[in-house]
Amino acid sequence: MRARDLAADFPTIALGTSAMDAARLLAEHRLPGLIVVDDRGAPRTILPGTQVLRLAVPGYAQEDPALARVVDEAHADEFARTLNGRTVRECLPEQPRELPVAAPDDTVLEIAAMMARCRSPLVAVVDDDGRMIGAVTLQALLNAVLPA
Amino acid sequence: MRARDLAADFPTIALGTSAMDAARLLAEHRLPGLIVVDDRGAPRTILPGTQVLRLAVPGYAQEDPALARVVDEAHADEFARTLNGRTVRECLPEQPRELPVAAPDDTVLEIAAMMARCRSPLVAVVDDDGRMIGAVTLQALLNAVLPA
Repeated sequence: MRARDLAADFPTIALGTSAMDAARLLAEHRLPGLIVVDDRGAPRTILPGTQVLRLAVPGYAQEDPALARVVDEAHADEFARTLNGRTVRECLPEQPRELPVAAPDDTVLEIAAMMARCRSPLVAVVDDDGRMIGAVTLQALLNAVLPA
Repeated sequence: MRARDLAADFPTIALGTSAMDAARLLAEHRLPGLIVVDDRGAPRTILPGTQVLRLAVPGYAQEDPALARVVDEAHADEFARTLNGRTVRECLPEQPRELPVAAPDDTVLEIAAMMARCRSPLVAVVDDDGRMIGAVTLQALLNAVLPA
């Protein structure tokens, strides 16, 4: 079994994608993160789901969650609004997460090794031109190798 | 909306759970990780999904994925077998990941702040005795706060 057999369609975003659209993708698909591709469709990095929250939640609340308690419910529900007008570029961590990239004929063990080394539950699979053709998730990998 | 309203059942494991059972849970449920509880049912830490792979994949393959290529398919398929007889205790990272813990009446903003600060897409919700009654996922949180 090779990367091409394990790869499935996976939602991608661009640096210019709105933070709200990224949040919606995360909410709809129960994904560990979103793959950011460049203009050529080449995978560049991963946007961890919690990074979107880092943009949406006021700094004081992140530093001391107890302070978040004094904010009333109405304000709490408003935090999604702070995402408006922001883009994925602003959500990315200062130290971008390494997104492992595999070739279509990489083996199961190679993909597992990439995931283990990068601690990434996602591996992007690219064609000869570097364009993303799908992604292998930890779940797909485990389902392929675990005894039935 | 409070933590109790957002919390849902979430699979838990113990330190003595077999690594194979943990891998199966990850494969079946598409979870970002598994919550490890102690004998009293109190949440202790999170087992990130990729940690199971770190135990299953030979060290040489993690350090240099290119080396994994020379291992033939038959061997690659065998790695699940290395999990046999190992436990969750052996899978945990040396630096355990912080699992945020919320009380049932914590607000949405408090939960979001915990997720953002700990970079954890999961928050365990515990009762007055510290026993886990469920977990809030990033998806549940986003679904609650994003405009329809």
